[in-house]
Amino acid sequence: MKQEYTFIVDRTPSYVRIQEELPSFAGICADFQGLNGAVGRVLLVCDTNTAAIARKILGKEERPRCVLPAGETAKTWASVEAILRAGQEAGLGRDGLFIGVGGGVVSDLTAFAASIYMRGASLCLVSTSLLGMVDAAVGGKTGFDLGGLKNLAGTFYPAPLIYMPLDSLVSLPPPEWKSGMGELIKTAILDDTGALLGQLRLLGSDPLDGMDPAGRERLFVAIAGSVGIKGRIVEADPRETGAERMRLNLGHTFAHALESAAGLGQVSHGEAVAWGLVCACELGYALGLTPLDRVEAIDGLLRDRSYETRVPHPFLTAPGKLEAFMRALDGDKKKKAGDLRFIVPLAKGVTAVSAKDIAADLVERIMRGEH
Amino acid sequence: MKQEYTFIVDRTPSYVRIQEELPSFAGICADFQGLNGAVGRVLLVCDTNTAAIARKILGKEERPRCVLPAGETAKTWASVEAILRAGQEAGLGRDGLFIGVGGGVVSDLTAFAASIYMRGASLCLVSTSLLGMVDAAVGGKTGFDLGGLKNLAGTFYPAPLIYMPLDSLVSLPPPEWKSGMGELIKTAILDDTGALLGQLRLLGSDPLDGMDPAGRERLFVAIAGSVGIKGRIVEADPRETGAERMRLNLGHTFAHALESAAGLGQVSHGEAVAWGLVCACELGYALGLTPLDRVEAIDGLLRDRSYETRVPHPFLTAPGKLEAFMRALDGDKKKKAGDLRFIVPLAKGVTAVSAKDIAADLVERIMRGEH
Repeated sequence: MKQEYTFIVDRTPSYVRIQEELPSFAGICADFQGLNGAVGRVLLVCDTNTAAIARKILGKEERPRCVLPAGETAKTWASVEAILRAGQEAGLGRDGLFIGVGGGVVSDLTAFAASIYMRGASLCLVSTSLLGMVDAAVGGKTGFDLGGLKNLAGTFYPAPLIYMPLDSLVSLPPPEWKSGMGELIKTAILDDTGALLGQLRLLGSDPLDGMDPAGRERLFVAIAGSVGIKGRIVEADPRETGAERMRLNLGHTFAHALESAAGLGQVSHGEAVAWGLVCACELGYALGLTPLDRVEAIDGLLRDRSYETRVPHPFLTAPGKLEAFMRALDGDKKKKAGDLRFIVPLAKGVTAVSAKDIAADLVERIMRGEH
Repeated sequence: MKQEYTFIVDRTPSYVRIQEELPSFAGICADFQGLNGAVGRVLLVCDTNTAAIARKILGKEERPRCVLPAGETAKTWASVEAILRAGQEAGLGRDGLFIGVGGGVVSDLTAFAASIYMRGASLCLVSTSLLGMVDAAVGGKTGFDLGGLKNLAGTFYPAPLIYMPLDSLVSLPPPEWKSGMGELIKTAILDDTGALLGQLRLLGSDPLDGMDPAGRERLFVAIAGSVGIKGRIVEADPRETGAERMRLNLGHTFAHALESAAGLGQVSHGEAVAWGLVCACELGYALGLTPLDRVEAIDGLLRDRSYETRVPHPFLTAPGKLEAFMRALDGDKKKKAGDLRFIVPLAKGVTAVSAKDIAADLVERIMRGEH
């Protein structure tokens, strides 16, 4: 199985290879040379979880590696600086190539570091987690957390070459699996055609190593479908200046506020997104936009896969937590200026609702479970 | 006196106002609104030297300010983080406006912080030093120093609105004046028409407060001329991918290596550039490209203004310093990969010489004063 896409993001072609096996180091260099003409010195970036995968990619090649601590709590400037210094020590020039081997955090950090190294070096991503494949690797958003806010600092820097090797999912821990599946469900819901949602229903919730060949193929089709949907949305609105890319934020306004209020890294991104989908459904239903059967279908899909669907979220029932959540929501509001929009599901696809058209206390009442 | 330019840098219009007085806060907001339609929340960024100027701009307006330590040694991530956190505390959203009030360091830091704040916020620069006006403010290069290397990290992020108020030069300390004049001389040398060089010869070397109205006007004309030359070069080659923008690096390969070897902040940027011009002349002469009368004219101009023109530079005669210089030059080589070129003066204008076409030890021999 192999699926290849080329998306044009901000005039930059981004070539995506979804395939069975890990790419080899020689294969990456050959592909990159084919796309960009030349490869300078190379630095591999991974985390403690993906160091073994990076080693497999290298095989007998000896190349400098930068190994970061794993997890969302490592998504800091200290990690970015570690990458930049490793690049400098490895003698990378402006034509140097940063290869990020890992999930969403490694992808975001490596891409950010490459985007500012000597004002922009070369970049390749090997996405090794389900969340990374369906979320971080495609679309050019890079960044890290600062001052308790997710991705307060970042750039737009689409990777020209991205691999998504299914084999790297074999060792994926179940929580990361669940996290990725949350984003996959989100993408399926915002897709107007409903095709991906149908494919997802056929999908088991086991990690890859428990899958038979047919299940593996269904997963492949779902990942490829999700990447295709996201890529086309990003092509249409690369810097989220229009209405198109905003749709990808379905569930994310609630998810980011939950992640911040719970403490970054306490709830995985995809699980927060899954919970955010429930909130988006409740809000859409209260506004008369999301039909009850759609609410129930989404709720059922999430409950079947053991996502937290309770509102208020158990993390927010402790003293002060709901207030922290509302403050974080307010921070998101500022982030998007007067322009905050909630994305809510329709019978098919989604729509955006301006916060101005929602009663000021409706969201808080929903969060309190009073609605 | 007033001169206005609009340069199109990387599809982004950059509007430059060279004028007598400091702009007022209300004036800045009105100008920005005229260009961009709306102004969100605002953060003023300055350093301990320009805090008084920032206060004058604000007048009776109360707005949040971020005051950085002054000087090249503050051109670090810590300063960038201080700006980002101040922006967050001041509640700036994606439409927030960062106003950098200061010389080259404040310009570079504020522009870098704005470029990564929520993946790109709004930016205005009030350039208050001669070096800032003729160098940092125009052209979109942002960055900070890391691992002992100048601007190892940075982005391209042209400011859409830039003020250059002559009045801010009144209190400029003489060393900063000399630093700015070094860049001004460089720009005059690379200009094929020779017009700016003629204007510079008429210019006194006093700080602004010692100038009569005629001297002040000559300075105005020289700054405007320099900004015009740089702006047109940057328009033609915004990201230094072609041969055009490279010309601006006249003297800089040597200057950056001197700054690094001497320790960042030990030699001012413009004085290092002036010394780099001497080196470029010696190299060009050794290669038979720079005529002797041109070498002598540039040397004379620099000596008249008391720049260090001795080769080897006194900073490089201490044990180990020349080796550090050659290593830094090698780092610059890596930065530009196989593509390092030295810019050397011709009878008029300049030309680029590939390092490959220069005997390996020629540069080192010149640096030792053995040539």
